[in-house]
Amino acid sequence: MADPIDFYFDFASPYGYFASLRIDELARAHGCRVTWHPILLGAIFKVTGMKPNLEQPLRGEYLSHDVGRIARLIGAPFTLPDSAPVNGVAASRAFYWLADDQPEQAKALARALYHAHFAEGRDIGPADTVAEIAVQALAGAVGDRAAVLAALGNPTVKDRLRAETEQAVARGVFGSPFVLVGNEPFWGWDRLDMVDRWLSNGGW
Amino acid sequence: MADPIDFYFDFASPYGYFASLRIDELARAHGCRVTWHPILLGAIFKVTGMKPNLEQPLRGEYLSHDVGRIARLIGAPFTLPDSAPVNGVAASRAFYWLADDQPEQAKALARALYHAHFAEGRDIGPADTVAEIAVQALAGAVGDRAAVLAALGNPTVKDRLRAETEQAVARGVFGSPFVLVGNEPFWGWDRLDMVDRWLSNGGW
Repeated sequence: MADPIDFYFDFASPYGYFASLRIDELARAHGCRVTWHPILLGAIFKVTGMKPNLEQPLRGEYLSHDVGRIARLIGAPFTLPDSAPVNGVAASRAFYWLADDQPEQAKALARALYHAHFAEGRDIGPADTVAEIAVQALAGAVGDRAAVLAALGNPTVKDRLRAETEQAVARGVFGSPFVLVGNEPFWGWDRLDMVDRWLSNGGW
Repeated sequence: MADPIDFYFDFASPYGYFASLRIDELARAHGCRVTWHPILLGAIFKVTGMKPNLEQPLRGEYLSHDVGRIARLIGAPFTLPDSAPVNGVAASRAFYWLADDQPEQAKALARALYHAHFAEGRDIGPADTVAEIAVQALAGAVGDRAAVLAALGNPTVKDRLRAETEQAVARGVFGSPFVLVGNEPFWGWDRLDMVDRWLSNGGW
């Protein structure tokens, strides 16, 4: 049985968005199971001393140019939202609310949130917006907006996001996207081809 | 005529070393001229607020693992030197001493210095070591060790390294390796395949 894949990403990360468009297909080609893990890089940057890419002189300008270039290359709908880097707390909590009981619905929601943000340019920071997207994307499966908003304030859901982010740090995750194949770490959208090769060869 | 390539690197950068093993061949396949530019990332980090990768928690450990993995993948001799991250001032000055009048010798010296550091694990920080490697790699072309050491203290050579680093910042360079195809920027060893594709397609 192939090693399972853990796919870590921050909803604020355009490179995480690009990776989300490919990771499941890549895993399927190798018979691997993928578990998605939204995390909060802001909390991880307190450990590493890094800053959001967009806020770094030179690197921020490079990123703004690079993401449009990648979108054209892979044919992904894309805009760099005015709200970037967005606060991914509400989006991530909505994901974990569903993750255990309805993992496919949770992935569908993550895709819908990423699409709203990076394809449509919407600000997915506000809980209201996340609730609206969840109701629309998942139809009856999540109840109405009030049900989603209640879930986002649920202490269990809040603790889960904190625990997932801590667990990510414990496994060495420091950026987005970050892919673990078993315990083999790959940082960055740039490395998906390497992940593919690693899975083909069983490492090297 | 294809756009010229500017290849920026720091002698302390293992990813710069990996890129140095491929950049000329990649350019030749597209009929491009490559100009090599050693720079000092330490000076650039003062502009960007970044820190050496190796000194960042989590990222440093990832890098230590990643570079060995890349070396195995591309079949490059490699060790992570005890002296990493090395001070590349003397090595860079030696390069610029030769760059205008003997550009091929300058490249040969850069390759020899990178090899000494990342294949043999030698500390290429001390001027004495740089002089020894220069005399050995370039034989009679650079005179004896005393001639090299004198060149490393030459104000014109020192100014040139400073000017090249400032020019790199002005062009948006913030890491190593960093490749400019005309003015199109590509950061990272991971992006050499993208550079190849960019040159094949004339952009996209």
